[in-house]
Amino acid sequence: MDISASFAALADPTRRAILARLALGEATVMELAKPFQMTQPAVSQHLKVLEEAGLIVQRVDGARRPRRLAKPGLDAMDQWLAMLRKALERDYDRLDGVLAAMQSEGKGKR
Amino acid sequence: MDISASFAALADPTRRAILARLALGEATVMELAKPFQMTQPAVSQHLKVLEEAGLIVQRVDGARRPRRLAKPGLDAMDQWLAMLRKALERDYDRLDGVLAAMQSEGKGKR
Repeated sequence: MDISASFAALADPTRRAILARLALGEATVMELAKPFQMTQPAVSQHLKVLEEAGLIVQRVDGARRPRRLAKPGLDAMDQWLAMLRKALERDYDRLDGVLAAMQSEGKGKR
Repeated sequence: MDISASFAALADPTRRAILARLALGEATVMELAKPFQMTQPAVSQHLKVLEEAGLIVQRVDGARRPRRLAKPGLDAMDQWLAMLRKALERDYDRLDGVLAAMQSEGKGKR
C-alpha cells in the first residue's frame, strides 16, 4: 500500500460514496451494486482500488465476500495531514504573536 | 474548490514534497524550483493544482509571489476522513463488546 494510492482512491466521488456506505456497515458487491445503480464489475473495480489503497478489506463468509472499512490507508493519510495541520497552527500562532505585539505597541503609544 | 481536487492533489509525491517544504515556511516558485531540480513552469503547474485544491495560497510581496499552506483543502479532507475514523472506531467498540461478552461467558462456564 502506498499513500499516493490512498489519496488517489479518495479523489473519486463514487469511491467516496462507497466508503460512506461501508461506514454504515459491511456490504457485498451485490449489495453495493443495487443502490449505486452500477454493474457488479464496475463496483468490483472500485473495490479493488479501495482495497489496494488500504481503505477496505474483505471478509470470507461462506460464498459471501463482504467488504468493510480498514485502518491502514486512513492512518497513513491522517499522519500526513497532521503534519500540514501542525505547520498551519504554527503559522497562526506566529500571526497571533505579531498581532498581539502590534496591539500592545498601539496601546503604548496612546 | 472541490474535495476531489484536494485528494487528487495529494496523490502526487512531488506535490506532497512541495507541501512538506512549504510546511517549513513560505517559498516562491524560484525558491522551490532549485531544491526540487525542476523547471519553474513545472513547479508553477504543480502550484496551480495545489492552489485550486485549496491547499496553498499566494501572497503579493512587491514582485515576489510567495506561496504558503492554506486551511480550506485540509479542513475539507480532515472532515471527510473523520467520518471514516468514527465509523472504524464504532466497529472496534462493537468488536470489544463481542470479545468482552465471549470472555465473561467463558468465565461463567469455568
